[in-house]
Amino acid sequence: MLNNTLDKTFYPASIAVLGASSREGTLSWALVNNLIKYGYNGMIFPVNPKAASIHSIKSYPSVNHIKDEVDLAVIMLPKDMVLDAIDDCGKKKIKAVMVITAGFKETGKDGAKTETELIARIKKYKMRLIGPNCMGLINTNPNVKMNCTFVHGTPIPGGIGFVSQSGALGAAVLKTVQQNDIGLAQFVSIGNKADVSGNTVLEYWRQNDDIKVITLYLESFGDPRKFMELTRSITRTKPVIAIKSARTTAGMRAASSHTGALASSDVVVDAFLEQSGVIRVNTTEEMFDIAKAFDMANLPAGNRVGILTNAGGPAILAVDECANWGLAVPELTAKTKNRLKKIVPAEGSLSNPVDLLPPANSEVYSQAAKFMLEDDNIDSLIVIVGPPLMLDTLEIAESVCRIVKGTSKTVMLVMMSQDDVIPHLKEVMPEHPPVYRYPEYAARAISRLYSYRKWKERPEGIYSKFDSAKKTVSKIVSKYRGKKNVYLNTQEVSDILNAYGLPIVGSVFANTTFDLIQISDKIKYPVVLKAVGSKLIHKSDMGGVEVDIHNPDELLRSAEKITSKLKEKNSLHLLEKFQIQPFVSGGVETILGITKDEKAGPMIMFGLGGIFVEVFKDVNFKLVPINDIEAAGMIRSIKSFEMLKGVRGKKPVDLEYIAESLLRLSQLSSDFPEFEEIDLNPFVFFDEKEKCKILDARIRV
Amino acid sequence: MLNNTLDKTFYPASIAVLGASSREGTLSWALVNNLIKYGYNGMIFPVNPKAASIHSIKSYPSVNHIKDEVDLAVIMLPKDMVLDAIDDCGKKKIKAVMVITAGFKETGKDGAKTETELIARIKKYKMRLIGPNCMGLINTNPNVKMNCTFVHGTPIPGGIGFVSQSGALGAAVLKTVQQNDIGLAQFVSIGNKADVSGNTVLEYWRQNDDIKVITLYLESFGDPRKFMELTRSITRTKPVIAIKSARTTAGMRAASSHTGALASSDVVVDAFLEQSGVIRVNTTEEMFDIAKAFDMANLPAGNRVGILTNAGGPAILAVDECANWGLAVPELTAKTKNRLKKIVPAEGSLSNPVDLLPPANSEVYSQAAKFMLEDDNIDSLIVIVGPPLMLDTLEIAESVCRIVKGTSKTVMLVMMSQDDVIPHLKEVMPEHPPVYRYPEYAARAISRLYSYRKWKERPEGIYSKFDSAKKTVSKIVSKYRGKKNVYLNTQEVSDILNAYGLPIVGSVFANTTFDLIQISDKIKYPVVLKAVGSKLIHKSDMGGVEVDIHNPDELLRSAEKITSKLKEKNSLHLLEKFQIQPFVSGGVETILGITKDEKAGPMIMFGLGGIFVEVFKDVNFKLVPINDIEAAGMIRSIKSFEMLKGVRGKKPVDLEYIAESLLRLSQLSSDFPEFEEIDLNPFVFFDEKEKCKILDARIRV
Repeated sequence: MLNNTLDKTFYPASIAVLGASSREGTLSWALVNNLIKYGYNGMIFPVNPKAASIHSIKSYPSVNHIKDEVDLAVIMLPKDMVLDAIDDCGKKKIKAVMVITAGFKETGKDGAKTETELIARIKKYKMRLIGPNCMGLINTNPNVKMNCTFVHGTPIPGGIGFVSQSGALGAAVLKTVQQNDIGLAQFVSIGNKADVSGNTVLEYWRQNDDIKVITLYLESFGDPRKFMELTRSITRTKPVIAIKSARTTAGMRAASSHTGALASSDVVVDAFLEQSGVIRVNTTEEMFDIAKAFDMANLPAGNRVGILTNAGGPAILAVDECANWGLAVPELTAKTKNRLKKIVPAEGSLSNPVDLLPPANSEVYSQAAKFMLEDDNIDSLIVIVGPPLMLDTLEIAESVCRIVKGTSKTVMLVMMSQDDVIPHLKEVMPEHPPVYRYPEYAARAISRLYSYRKWKERPEGIYSKFDSAKKTVSKIVSKYRGKKNVYLNTQEVSDILNAYGLPIVGSVFANTTFDLIQISDKIKYPVVLKAVGSKLIHKSDMGGVEVDIHNPDELLRSAEKITSKLKEKNSLHLLEKFQIQPFVSGGVETILGITKDEKAGPMIMFGLGGIFVEVFKDVNFKLVPINDIEAAGMIRSIKSFEMLKGVRGKKPVDLEYIAESLLRLSQLSSDFPEFEEIDLNPFVFFDEKEKCKILDARIRV
Repeated sequence: MLNNTLDKTFYPASIAVLGASSREGTLSWALVNNLIKYGYNGMIFPVNPKAASIHSIKSYPSVNHIKDEVDLAVIMLPKDMVLDAIDDCGKKKIKAVMVITAGFKETGKDGAKTETELIARIKKYKMRLIGPNCMGLINTNPNVKMNCTFVHGTPIPGGIGFVSQSGALGAAVLKTVQQNDIGLAQFVSIGNKADVSGNTVLEYWRQNDDIKVITLYLESFGDPRKFMELTRSITRTKPVIAIKSARTTAGMRAASSHTGALASSDVVVDAFLEQSGVIRVNTTEEMFDIAKAFDMANLPAGNRVGILTNAGGPAILAVDECANWGLAVPELTAKTKNRLKKIVPAEGSLSNPVDLLPPANSEVYSQAAKFMLEDDNIDSLIVIVGPPLMLDTLEIAESVCRIVKGTSKTVMLVMMSQDDVIPHLKEVMPEHPPVYRYPEYAARAISRLYSYRKWKERPEGIYSKFDSAKKTVSKIVSKYRGKKNVYLNTQEVSDILNAYGLPIVGSVFANTTFDLIQISDKIKYPVVLKAVGSKLIHKSDMGGVEVDIHNPDELLRSAEKITSKLKEKNSLHLLEKFQIQPFVSGGVETILGITKDEKAGPMIMFGLGGIFVEVFKDVNFKLVPINDIEAAGMIRSIKSFEMLKGVRGKKPVDLEYIAESLLRLSQLSSDFPEFEEIDLNPFVFFDEKEKCKILDARIRV
């Protein structure tokens, strides 16, 4: 909105708390208490006309009584006093404001009006605003050490940034991270997003060195396209993990009744999160399990996992979960096995997973970890330590951490009884590998790190620009300007597709049966005969299509058949003319299409035709425009991809030409957002580019 | 094995600990310490010739020096002393023994030999044995209060029984349950399962009133069929939840190297767990999340969930997860809405999810919970309480628990910051609904409870017995006795299928082209011509099949075509004769088959033919015999089921006849386990039973 940076919000040297209270148990008391208790490295100015001091700190009747400069004003006043307080802050030239107070847009019309006024004043004073209706802000940077929230407890420092649209969830997450060795860098609850939105925070964190991995809880996407453009570049350098809750239709009803934002449908969200490289997770705990891995572990170079254990059961769980996520658990090199043989007991196992058996001590563990990390067959290492029997697991954990320090490989520790391990490691080795209770989570985390690495290293992709007769299309489009929900006629559809190099089959038309007889001798058989009429939309259901016609005789008989069928259905009056096209047999039927999402705009779709789209809904969507890598990805991501590679003795179809066709269609849609819907169905692909044809197409403006 | 019950093992009035140590930090010290510390309600007799007393308890030089009766002997002696200790226990007439000591089967040949000897002695003395190589036993029944393990901490009492094949995992689980308000009734680590196996414990727990829900961690199934028979009846009264880790091929390698047990393949395990009604979970935490729900909540009558919240975000997560699991979040009745209107603030939401907004206190919460529970549209209720702001969440939790007490509906509490809530509830209301941190888990748990209820109420199913010419099949089978890996000839296959009412198409054979000319006039066209030869297995790949033949001329031309193709592939000498069958077109191609798993025995398979089985591997397996409900379920569980219901204007096929065919095939396989493999492929189904035909079939003995 404004061009201010958010530094004064996230790294304030001084904070005024408007509405600070000396009454224990109130939110504002708790907030000031958190600032003090967790060692905020700046000045706090409580503002409360009725108190002389709060928390042993001098209290001011208004912000304007404060002589020092105030970076951030936290407003916790009753709703009716918020606007005046903004004016006060404006006079004091405060540039960063956070409104904790609720009762704005989320409560209905009146609240929305107040919020509009709030935004107007923020603009007037060129301020940045967090909230209203939010829960606060945390920055664990040692120079700041600010817990500016009213919830109990504080997270340990780390590299994770977490932005939450829901205050309740944000608070629950703060509990979770405290219990699971998850280090936060910054946390912000953005509430009603009147000024600072999720996108604003993302933009801010992109450049922020304290943030290594970004986690999001979003209920709605204000601007999906902006979000995509933003995250697409951020994810090239920092992982972004999102739990997008409103991901099914049932979820959407609640979403819209909650924040007034119309939640996007699931397929759109999936499409643009994937295009953005955002890692989408199902649950809050999964999000932080994975964020912890990004924060504390290296990205793996490949998918090969070594497993070191002193207990068979958990190793099986790890192997199994690796397989589930497409990770390999390969054999170790002969050299590694030889080295291990000297330290692993005879009853143990030298093949991956390496089983040291329960009595293994810290020396054996750290030696084995070292040997495995030095194995060229291994990209990642999961070290599993069964529960403490007589062993000192602290010692094992510590020695393993020392050995793996400095490795460029990915290491995960599974301490099956970790209660005292984590506090111990925090003290002696603050920079240890991520620690999990169960091996499943370590395997899952490695798979996500590996996928992210592949994303990062994936080329940017090229947005091809094909030569096209744009003018032809412009002319047609201009004819329909101002009209709504209209289908273009067959000739126009052909002209448009030809203009963009999309191979629609040629057609000959006949207005009457007489015309048909006239031209029947000049046609190259076999052909297809179709009934055409602007109101004949589902012509094949009406019996208006006859295929595989071999000679003039058959052609005329087919025409009769079509007219009699239309008569049967009382639709003969809809028949305007006949269309004759070459009959194409064999090949693989696909559908390529464009549709428009209210918020995200035009989307391109690919799938196989027939039962694959009708029964299995096996399609892939992307936001337009797509690049070459996305086009190739769309083709490969459908479940029926195998069908294109040639099954049952068929030759594979020309995959590159499918990709090219998708790119051409994407370009057409980009050039002409006027098209509400384009359906190339069926688009039949063969092994040779020249044979591939669009047999039918519809375009709606 | 023996007919002893396990009461003396699980409910011992006295325990002797052989190898008890007074040295702190040893396993045996820890075990005796646990017995004392957690208040074992019986007598402990430490046995150690070198100590006068252990843990202030008189120590005995051997079990035979103990004057009192000993119910359970726990052996923690060095490996070499175990067998002698068994003899001592035998003399003392001890009937229950647990061997913690490791170093048996799991360590290789020598250990396996000692284990065989151990089993022999156990049999000799008619003892029951837990272990060896196990971690112990817990029983939280207030009359027993026995923690007979060496791990730190003890679970709270509850209704869950947990049996673990892996000691390490068992110990990790004991940690997890302590942290998550999960009440265990009994825990047993069965180690090498020399005598007492998972099945033994299941059998014991089936009748045990302390156990409400059974949880299992298994690495291998000793006897899958026995397991299935057992659990199929247990799950009718008690839920059984299993985490079966070796569930993928990659997992199997580790499994077999770990316990020497050959892990069953995933599809087999899935099949028999489903037939058993066992709830299969992916992770350890999921298992106990769900077990907790079974222990603490009622089973829901239907799939309709009400959600009550004071925060929008978590409610969306709940709605969304409900949708993911097929649960409905329906509108409330007008009556309920009217009642709620009086207590819900204007800015809140009266439609499901009901949002009370953050300031809602315990009175509003409990009233709203009451109204929603009384709503006829609702079967289950999720009560979400956002994190404590100024509110007393303890009070809210307590008041909601009081209101829902005695309801027959399903209730779940989501306390998003539950740290002090659970200890509080434990004290004031030990019998509270299950409490979760995040709403996703509550929704998931409800879905599992609901699925289980449906399983419980599902009819038992009928094992049909069709009339069959069993003798015909016996005669053929007897011809092949002693032979291995042989395919039956075409005539035998036809005879067998006809004997069991399976409609294989009729055939006419011709040994020479001359024969073919002779019979060509008598045939009813269209027909299919096939090359037959005992070594011509993949005849269609060899060009040995011609279809849709309309007259004698075409028949002879087809025969020429086949011979020339076989000649091309240098396979003409394999041709023994021609087979002529009616040509069947249309319908839906399926595959019905029998295959044998090494451990689980014969399995029946169903799937659609062509690409559905070849590309998508969309098939369902069950252990033979199947009942009518399982047959119907197999058909419905394939992903391409829609294809059978008639797509693109096709008529639905006769689903009942598919089920009947599966039952007939199942009966054939049950009657003749000699058949290693039966393949009815394709078996074409139509809308009318009479038209359905098996076009090709293979049987291997």
